[in-house]
Amino acid sequence: MIDEALREINRGCAEIIDNERIEKLLKAYFQEGKTYTVKAGFDPTAPDLHLGHTVLLQKLATFQKYGARVQFLIGSFTATIGDPTGKNATRKVLSKEDIIKNIESYTTQAFKILDESKTDIVYNDDWLGKMSAADLIALASNLTVARMLERDDFSKRFKTNVAIATSEFMYPLLQGYDSVYLKSDIEIGGTDQKFNLLMGRQLQKVYNIKKQQAILMMPILEGLDGVQKMSKSLGNYIGVSDEPNDMFGKVLSISDELMWRYFELLSDKSLDEIAALERAVKEGKLHPKKVKEDLALEITARFHDKEAAQNAKEEFDRIHSKSQIPNDISEFSCEGPIWIAKALVDCKMEPSTSQARRDIKQGGVKIDQKKVSDEKLELSSGEYLLQVGKRKFAKLKVK
Amino acid sequence: MIDEALREINRGCAEIIDNERIEKLLKAYFQEGKTYTVKAGFDPTAPDLHLGHTVLLQKLATFQKYGARVQFLIGSFTATIGDPTGKNATRKVLSKEDIIKNIESYTTQAFKILDESKTDIVYNDDWLGKMSAADLIALASNLTVARMLERDDFSKRFKTNVAIATSEFMYPLLQGYDSVYLKSDIEIGGTDQKFNLLMGRQLQKVYNIKKQQAILMMPILEGLDGVQKMSKSLGNYIGVSDEPNDMFGKVLSISDELMWRYFELLSDKSLDEIAALERAVKEGKLHPKKVKEDLALEITARFHDKEAAQNAKEEFDRIHSKSQIPNDISEFSCEGPIWIAKALVDCKMEPSTSQARRDIKQGGVKIDQKKVSDEKLELSSGEYLLQVGKRKFAKLKVK
Repeated sequence: MIDEALREINRGCAEIIDNERIEKLLKAYFQEGKTYTVKAGFDPTAPDLHLGHTVLLQKLATFQKYGARVQFLIGSFTATIGDPTGKNATRKVLSKEDIIKNIESYTTQAFKILDESKTDIVYNDDWLGKMSAADLIALASNLTVARMLERDDFSKRFKTNVAIATSEFMYPLLQGYDSVYLKSDIEIGGTDQKFNLLMGRQLQKVYNIKKQQAILMMPILEGLDGVQKMSKSLGNYIGVSDEPNDMFGKVLSISDELMWRYFELLSDKSLDEIAALERAVKEGKLHPKKVKEDLALEITARFHDKEAAQNAKEEFDRIHSKSQIPNDISEFSCEGPIWIAKALVDCKMEPSTSQARRDIKQGGVKIDQKKVSDEKLELSSGEYLLQVGKRKFAKLKVK
Repeated sequence: MIDEALREINRGCAEIIDNERIEKLLKAYFQEGKTYTVKAGFDPTAPDLHLGHTVLLQKLATFQKYGARVQFLIGSFTATIGDPTGKNATRKVLSKEDIIKNIESYTTQAFKILDESKTDIVYNDDWLGKMSAADLIALASNLTVARMLERDDFSKRFKTNVAIATSEFMYPLLQGYDSVYLKSDIEIGGTDQKFNLLMGRQLQKVYNIKKQQAILMMPILEGLDGVQKMSKSLGNYIGVSDEPNDMFGKVLSISDELMWRYFELLSDKSLDEIAALERAVKEGKLHPKKVKEDLALEITARFHDKEAAQNAKEEFDRIHSKSQIPNDISEFSCEGPIWIAKALVDCKMEPSTSQARRDIKQGGVKIDQKKVSDEKLELSSGEYLLQVGKRKFAKLKVK
């Protein structure tokens, strides 16, 4: 049981620091029912979330399944700090009210994945807002400038002479201090957050917290193209608030390879279930499109509901069946005008004109992808794509 | 009058930034009686002050003569900040009480130079202690890391991989902010403080103070050797609490060249008075030693009193007259034993033995630097240094 939990927790991770600590926490949960805390930080801006953002939420949900309380940390502190110079136009000062409103919209989405009863939403301005300049200076004494400049983004900016405000050096320290204040057992974040995540571990040590947080880093999710990271600006994203039809259709559009990646990072299916699906596909027992539909249904149902997902699937089928025209359609020609029922028989699509008339009445016959309703229709000269039911096609040239 | 004041203020400065502002402040003082503020920062540690420290105080005193109120700023804020890591063993956390005690000892010395009635002692933890972490971050947003690393000492340490704590980046900002809070019109400091002094000017601008502080930088005072900076560890210093005799003697020990430097930076004499002395020495009308004695008297009287200074001079003369033996002393020889009075006549030091006897009676005759009291003394064989009064010497070899 612990092994399975650990496997699910490790699933899809880019890097884990102190997995041993995670093992011990799981053991204590399974053997003594002890819960533990997993911290994840979120911006108090209200972006339109896309699936890329939910990779982290999925992992948090997994932790909740195995005894974790989630510390859903809102980075509200920096958002409330003004820039006295007014230079930094990009940093909009948010009021606490703005932030709470943004976060409500955020959590409404997040709680489609997270268990609300096992989630504590905390705002770091509750403690950082009370911190004095003296405290901050004492905090800053724990890190050297050289070490700070090792951080990837700072290092790049420093080398290319892109300005770094000294205030920016404070943010990793504050994020780290959050872990001190919250006494987090585990923190999770993106791989791009490694420096800041380690800062929490380091500062917990400085502030005499006996056991430092384990760190779990999730990879960046690829977008629909399977190459670049999912992002709004690249247009390769599935938005959490996309309409069910869009959501379903976008999942179906990904490659088979990317599908397994999405299963790993986004599906609630267990690793064993996914492995079974993979086997079945490999052995030809299951069509990959069927598996992809299941994933699309799961994801669509998550952010809407099962019925909406099912409707989306049907709508998708309806629309896309249109274009399910085989490439090798038999071609016929005849003198016109010709009665539609006779034409269908001539083209070997119907056994008899009476059967043809019945099918027309039931809406089973299309010309150029439009349903035929008039059973007496005469085709004059021209070219026609005839269709009976879903699968029978013929091209007819009427002279 | 303004011109003279400006000359005295400019006197000895290493660098002045915005001298125009100083001119305007002086004009407003002389024409409208408007006072203005001059800030200088001091450490709340209680070092044994030496004359090097008083260069700044002398300049402040000059400003006070010309309408300034001195903001005697105690950097008490950082001294009260602890280092949570305990790494920084050199930084002793001082209590407010410690600081006040230290500063009392400091100002007791300083008020021998400064006019207490025109001095406001201010402690920066009074406002920095109330500053929040958020305020500090906003403050820090005004300066880039690159600019901070341009500071001489940071730059050197960064290049040679000597650790700089990120907290150290905060100190120049805080010192600058002091000028914002105090709305200082002028700040003075050592040349090594240029970066921090400019920070005050820059931040005043950011915080919308219409007229930024002028800056006046004083050079580092050379020690008794005239080469290296005056410092306790080099042993080339004159301590403010040195005994009058030491103080007087140390000043007399400096070179003539250094004497003029000390006049410029340490004397209350006006530039005109000093120029007159220089002329007189150049023209041979005044012995440089006499001028040096005046300087020694002035400095000793400043930290003790006139009487103590005068006593020190006399004591000095008494002791040092011993060694005032010319290099080119005439040598004589004679058969012994010989009567002292006759010996003095033979050596052409006395016109007659009766005069010699009178001088001996009055204590005006020395042998080997010891007074002779016995007018009947016979010199047996040996070598003797004979002296009559202060200036007459002879060497006598008695065979």
